[in-house]
Amino acid sequence: MGELREDPTTGNWVIIAPERERRPHESAPALKVVAAASGFDPACPFCPGNEAMLPPIIAETASNAPPGWKIRVVANKFPAVSPNAPPCGPGTFYQAAAGLGYQEVLIESPRHDQALTSLSDDEVRDVLAACRSRYAALKGHAAVRSVIVFRNHGAKAGVSLRHPHSQVIALEGVPPLARAREAAMFSYYQKNKRCVLCDIIAYERNDGSRLTGENSAFVTLVPFAASVPCEMWVLPKRHQADFGDIEEAEIGLLASALREALIRLAAALNDPPYCYMIETAVNARPEAQFLHWRLRIVPRSTVSAGFELASGLPINAHSPEQDAAVLRQALLRGMVERVGFEPT
Amino acid sequence: MGELREDPTTGNWVIIAPERERRPHESAPALKVVAAASGFDPACPFCPGNEAMLPPIIAETASNAPPGWKIRVVANKFPAVSPNAPPCGPGTFYQAAAGLGYQEVLIESPRHDQALTSLSDDEVRDVLAACRSRYAALKGHAAVRSVIVFRNHGAKAGVSLRHPHSQVIALEGVPPLARAREAAMFSYYQKNKRCVLCDIIAYERNDGSRLTGENSAFVTLVPFAASVPCEMWVLPKRHQADFGDIEEAEIGLLASALREALIRLAAALNDPPYCYMIETAVNARPEAQFLHWRLRIVPRSTVSAGFELASGLPINAHSPEQDAAVLRQALLRGMVERVGFEPT
Repeated sequence: MGELREDPTTGNWVIIAPERERRPHESAPALKVVAAASGFDPACPFCPGNEAMLPPIIAETASNAPPGWKIRVVANKFPAVSPNAPPCGPGTFYQAAAGLGYQEVLIESPRHDQALTSLSDDEVRDVLAACRSRYAALKGHAAVRSVIVFRNHGAKAGVSLRHPHSQVIALEGVPPLARAREAAMFSYYQKNKRCVLCDIIAYERNDGSRLTGENSAFVTLVPFAASVPCEMWVLPKRHQADFGDIEEAEIGLLASALREALIRLAAALNDPPYCYMIETAVNARPEAQFLHWRLRIVPRSTVSAGFELASGLPINAHSPEQDAAVLRQALLRGMVERVGFEPT
Repeated sequence: MGELREDPTTGNWVIIAPERERRPHESAPALKVVAAASGFDPACPFCPGNEAMLPPIIAETASNAPPGWKIRVVANKFPAVSPNAPPCGPGTFYQAAAGLGYQEVLIESPRHDQALTSLSDDEVRDVLAACRSRYAALKGHAAVRSVIVFRNHGAKAGVSLRHPHSQVIALEGVPPLARAREAAMFSYYQKNKRCVLCDIIAYERNDGSRLTGENSAFVTLVPFAASVPCEMWVLPKRHQADFGDIEEAEIGLLASALREALIRLAAALNDPPYCYMIETAVNARPEAQFLHWRLRIVPRSTVSAGFELASGLPINAHSPEQDAAVLRQALLRGMVERVGFEPT
């Protein structure tokens, strides 16, 4: 039987309905067609040597080893928003506006065949440090009001190029979900005089049933109102409104929490497609006691159907508590299968 | 370059970015694995003769031909909501509620291998008449506040059983998208003293660039702020808040408009997965001058990625005007390819 649950950080409700997992499925057997990836693809614009296909390089992390770089940042060649978007024509019956903003791609490695889980903790730290650096640079533009850092993994999560990359999009406006999130967080703060995510962290660390990992700076959990199987949040334990305020030592701890979460996820759901995004304060002010950033991992192994599109109520056929139990067990299994390491 | 567009019936914005269609895609070639469907599947609970697998029949449209029925309504065997959902335990830190409601499946044909586009206009009319009948029956429950009629087509649109079926879900609450839609429609009405969909119909019939079809009672168009390629709305030309108020003659005209739209869509996007849903007034009162129901067709040939999940801003890589032009041309092509009929 379904249970309706509210996410207090957004005000959104979901239906948790584990019985639906027992539905018969008639679809063809999952036939994973994976083209063999190698370290280099002559057709890939992100591979070293193919710079003729690449837009101008905005930033680069140097390396002593060939090809001389570890991480590269370029403008998105096919942007949805751009600083040069032409103004809209004269108004008609409808409202429209120029798609003003910046859209960058952060190439995470010279190697075509890497994934975040196959990089080391230090390499993932460098990726996140580069994300923070571009976040700060784009936030510095006078017209920019919100910056979204995100990453897609797998074709079903929207990946068009396999070469590992993160993305950063800066907008002149505040997108609807950021507006809704900040309103819900503010409403909780007004009522309770405390930050909602600080309260969630305290509650979940005490309860334990949805926790999946923890280090000195971050806690990882399946949210109470997870919208899809194995949704996970990585939360800074220290109250922090703005991702841009993360400190050097914390970036390393975020990298290790993220990599651990992604390995657990790959083991629990058989390397599913996923998106993750850093949901951080818009126009962050240090005094924003009600805002708290997070990294949200959204597996894309399920599809939403007509009811969800019509209602806006996601149906999650997994129990968040059972998912968390599976994810807690999954790391060991994941390590054995992926690294070939058998603990004694 | 992207353009931001607002949907005045919801207040939602989308980014229209046709240039993104030119992105290179590295994914494996589309390999459509379609198990051959026949008129009968011994494992399908919806096929005649397999009634042992079927929940009790709620309603049936009789037929003189074997198996004696044309359309059947049963309770969903794996419901997300149910009239018997147990009450939630004592409150914790979070908000939760019992998933109370009704969830029915409307089996559209005894034949396993049908699609709406392969039925006749009369058969589609019978399906929609049965939907209206279940809509009215469920709306009649004292506790029900909203009823959603919808249909999924294709595994990527969430179909778990191929046998053709529609679904009806009744809820004790008002889902978030219905609430947002009615608020946007009310706000437009307050400002303009006219129904927003009546105004859209007048504007689009005059403009013509997004129209895809019309009969005496319905107009079909690609909306100005389409969230995905070839999104289509089928709109009653007569102001009507509640789908339940549709008249007998109008049901036949809705069936023919819907079937035409789905044939155009199949021809334009190579038989894509889709969902459609009837978005109608919640707690409809006849005096609701600001509400106007619609049937919304949402093709599922694209996947949303991290930016859309993080921002709530869909990116549509097709121009609604170009899609409408393709859909207007598509019927002829679709008829030639599907029916083998070559117009002279």
